[in-house]
Amino acid sequence: MATAKLWTDAEVEASPRVKAVFDDIRATRNSNFVNNFWRALAGQPEVLERTWASLKAVMIAPGELDPLTKELVYIAVSTINSCPYCVHSHTAAARAKGLTDGQHGEFLAVLAMASQTNALVTALQVPVDPEFQVG
Amino acid sequence: MATAKLWTDAEVEASPRVKAVFDDIRATRNSNFVNNFWRALAGQPEVLERTWASLKAVMIAPGELDPLTKELVYIAVSTINSCPYCVHSHTAAARAKGLTDGQHGEFLAVLAMASQTNALVTALQVPVDPEFQVG
Amino acid sequence: MATAKLWTDAEVEASPRVKAVFDDIRATRNSNFVNNFWRALAGQPEVLERTWASLKAVMIAPGELDPLTKELVYIAVSTINSCPYCVHSHTAAARAKGLTDGQHGEFLAVLAMASQTNALVTALQVPVDPEFQVG
Amino acid sequence: MATAKLWTDAEVEASPRVKAVFDDIRATRNSNFVNNFWRALAGQPEVLERTWASLKAVMIAPGELDPLTKELVYIAVSTINSCPYCVHSHTAAARAKGLTDGQHGEFLAVLAMASQTNALVTALQVPVDPEFQVG
Amino acid sequence: MATAKLWTDAEVEASPRVKAVFDDIRATRNSNFVNNFWRALAGQPEVLERTWASLKAVMIAPGELDPLTKELVYIAVSTINSCPYCVHSHTAAARAKGLTDGQHGEFLAVLAMASQTNALVTALQVPVDPEFQVG
Amino acid sequence: MATAKLWTDAEVEASPRVKAVFDDIRATRNSNFVNNFWRALAGQPEVLERTWASLKAVMIAPGELDPLTKELVYIAVSTINSCPYCVHSHTAAARAKGLTDGQHGEFLAVLAMASQTNALVTALQVPVDPEFQVG
Repeated sequence: MATAKLWTDAEVEASPRVKAVFDDIRATRNSNFVNNFWRALAGQPEVLERTWASLKAVMIAPGELDPLTKELVYIAVSTINSCPYCVHSHTAAARAKGLTDGQHGEFLAVLAMASQTNALVTALQVPVDPEFQVG
Repeated sequence: MATAKLWTDAEVEASPRVKAVFDDIRATRNSNFVNNFWRALAGQPEVLERTWASLKAVMIAPGELDPLTKELVYIAVSTINSCPYCVHSHTAAARAKGLTDGQHGEFLAVLAMASQTNALVTALQVPVDPEFQVG
Repeated sequence: MATAKLWTDAEVEASPRVKAVFDDIRATRNSNFVNNFWRALAGQPEVLERTWASLKAVMIAPGELDPLTKELVYIAVSTINSCPYCVHSHTAAARAKGLTDGQHGEFLAVLAMASQTNALVTALQVPVDPEFQVG
Repeated sequence: MATAKLWTDAEVEASPRVKAVFDDIRATRNSNFVNNFWRALAGQPEVLERTWASLKAVMIAPGELDPLTKELVYIAVSTINSCPYCVHSHTAAARAKGLTDGQHGEFLAVLAMASQTNALVTALQVPVDPEFQVG
Repeated sequence: MATAKLWTDAEVEASPRVKAVFDDIRATRNSNFVNNFWRALAGQPEVLERTWASLKAVMIAPGELDPLTKELVYIAVSTINSCPYCVHSHTAAARAKGLTDGQHGEFLAVLAMASQTNALVTALQVPVDPEFQVG
Repeated sequence: MATAKLWTDAEVEASPRVKAVFDDIRATRNSNFVNNFWRALAGQPEVLERTWASLKAVMIAPGELDPLTKELVYIAVSTINSCPYCVHSHTAAARAKGLTDGQHGEFLAVLAMASQTNALVTALQVPVDPEFQVG
């Protein structure tokens, strides 16, 4: 179904460079499950390494935004970019981080609200108010 | 610059239906400033009323997501939908609701992260893991 | 401001191939005004010729959809593709073809409606009902 | 397959708030069939109610644009937003409202035309002609 | 699964206008295989003819960009437009034209890079440097 | 105009962390000019460092795709993502790397071609041919 091969665990084992990333994914997430995204990227070790390093720094290392907020932003981007896989995987991640049905409903409402005002603004070509400009 | 006229306060005053919405925007936000989006929509009273009613219910009424999280989701949608006006107005709104530079930086990092993995997933056409499916 | 030079009438005169297209645009539209899109394309005669030939066949030749409906579809595509120039030029074209303020308002309402349900459907990853499938 | 549960008729029956919306959908459309979109939204009664109320006002109440034109705009938005479900459901709706094969072909031609000129305009960054500006 | 019927070879044989295009596709590509895109378009002979004529001129006729570069640009557009079919068919075409795994990896890296800086630029609303302007 | 401050050279000088990145940009590109993108990112040192490190590895380090091909892919992504700044800056970069007017014309033609078939495929919901699937 993909445009590149999904690597099996046996194939990962045979490539030290890929194995190192998969080992770190498993250790960092404290889970043996490695999802298809990483298996599809395994054929490109450099992209795999860089992507995982960034994801770990951005989404997993503690920061000033709480992990659930980050996941909601991630799902919003993935929805507007029309990426079914990404919507599925990050909605699952948000649920694992405590997203309630009530919060999901409000998130959906914001998503719908922003989408409709975005369309209205673009169709009307509203000029930016000077009050919103920085510097 | 717009594809529809931006209504001045004098024009708003002359239309009771539009004036009612503008009065509610000012009262709800506790500010005299009404931004160009509403002025561009004023020529379409029905769309104006429905849009403001939804925005008030979704973004202003208290709920289970905090106001800043909602604004971040709104900016994320607006960014991926490439709406300059919307990015400007909701970044200003987020700042008004307390967004710090550090939080903005993390938000930008999540936005960049999601955008790049979205592109990789779509180019690789990664099949959804059964683990992510609901029901 | 553009990424390619906008051709002046004098420059168009000096290139028989470009002049032929500009002459046909003026004759077909019965107007001396040629908008910037064609001036920016003039440096690429092959793309210019093919684009004008298609536009003439699709948008100007009489068919089964009325001209105003075609313009509304064009603006809808241009809005969602976030193309300010295209939104401006085709909203002007729709007005020239008789678009009323009332029709514009309903068009905006449909645009906003579709945008919000698109976002909800994608975030919920709703499976297609068998009833909607063809063949 | 969805990221939220699709409600069955039995589950709808058990929730008065959801049942009221489903009853109105069935009465308004004069059909017992309720498609998956509403079943996926049923877990979020507030979003369900607001979305249905807007859809009814925008797409079903009589107005100045004919119902088929509205559906074509809806499909155009859904296509550019890359929403397979929405394209399927609204193409089915357009057919039910009388869309002929000839009209569908012209619609497809406009969609293709707008998409290609949108890309050319954005790649060339064509500046908006003063003739297209309002006010 | 489609919103229009996919024409079988027998149906194509029965329509001289469609058959002429299919014959040319087969002759030009030197292959008997005609993919679903053309079968879905067959119900709209005018769109079919115009699309094939353009594709042949743009993608198959020799020019100043090599065929593999053109396919990479095609996949990039299709990825950002979220078109699974298009990503699949043009990745297969690129492989047929010699795309190596190493080149695919670098292409994916550029795709991810551009996607993330696009998001950052739009969220920051960076003004265009005068140095980048033409004319 | 931006949503964040554009750092001046004096402000960059005062921040060792930002200065290190700007120094590397100047040394790597062998030019004193640093464009607004980096000045807008300067307020977020971590995102600045990570973005520059990735860009240097992906776009500047020698690889299996030639630099001009990479720029064309970058412009394609930026065009479809509707990012005016990105289109401007990478078209300038492509010209600096030798892009001719003839090549630009063919690139534009591919961009237009892909955009129109993407729209047709999505509107028709064409199912992927088994011949295009990998693994």
